[in-house]
Amino acid sequence: MLNSEPYQPDNIFAKILRGELPAHKVFEDDVAVAFLDIMPQSPGHTLVVPKLASRGLLDFPADGWGPFMGRVQLVAAAVKKGMDAEGLSVRQFEGAAGGQTVFHLHFHVLPRWEGVALRRHADSVEKPDVLKAHAAKIRAAF
Amino acid sequence: MLNSEPYQPDNIFAKILRGELPAHKVFEDDVAVAFLDIMPQSPGHTLVVPKLASRGLLDFPADGWGPFMGRVQLVAAAVKKGMDAEGLSVRQFEGAAGGQTVFHLHFHVLPRWEGVALRRHADSVEKPDVLKAHAAKIRAAF
Repeated sequence: MLNSEPYQPDNIFAKILRGELPAHKVFEDDVAVAFLDIMPQSPGHTLVVPKLASRGLLDFPADGWGPFMGRVQLVAAAVKKGMDAEGLSVRQFEGAAGGQTVFHLHFHVLPRWEGVALRRHADSVEKPDVLKAHAAKIRAAF
Repeated sequence: MLNSEPYQPDNIFAKILRGELPAHKVFEDDVAVAFLDIMPQSPGHTLVVPKLASRGLLDFPADGWGPFMGRVQLVAAAVKKGMDAEGLSVRQFEGAAGGQTVFHLHFHVLPRWEGVALRRHADSVEKPDVLKAHAAKIRAAF
């Protein structure tokens, strides 16, 4: 089983949570941090990351779901409004075979528009100015 | 905003919840029902559906997240084990532009294996015997 492997505190999201790496943050409280994916599959692609440490969904503490998913919901509403999106796709990848690349639980919130396909995951790095502008729009929508 | 539209109790998942339509169920309790998607993107593709009524993630009652996501986690573990999967993709589609086709909140749990791509969403209907066999494997893994 994948999640019998221990959590590794040197992953990049843990470093962002500790303030050791920068991020285009749109939300932070005691439960979760949300910031833009630097390789967005759509404009405004946001990651919601719980402060509780787990590799993924299967090993997340059961009593953490209520607070964490409340933040996912709050961030999703702001992403949709701030980016003026028509819909959202919400995704979580569990294990390398599931597409996971950073082993700290996170939910992807992807703005969607009719007829516009998603870009591939981790395809290309977006310009910092574009990320900065999208983060400002989303922050203003809370 | 999509979720200003009211919930419609004649959607097919509400009918499954009320027992008016059949489904290849793998789990049911007072909080949620899980059953196989009849148009699987991968073998064992399972839907987890809360008994609380909402169109999607944005209008789901905040105090329902803890119980519901606990069931998503439980079902995800059984899907992974029962299908002997290497990983999982978990997905939620919000609004038609996000890919949503049934307007009662549901999470997709997709078994994944290295190097095996997902089939397209709603591409073709799986044979009932195959769905029955996969449901039995997953039920046995709880």
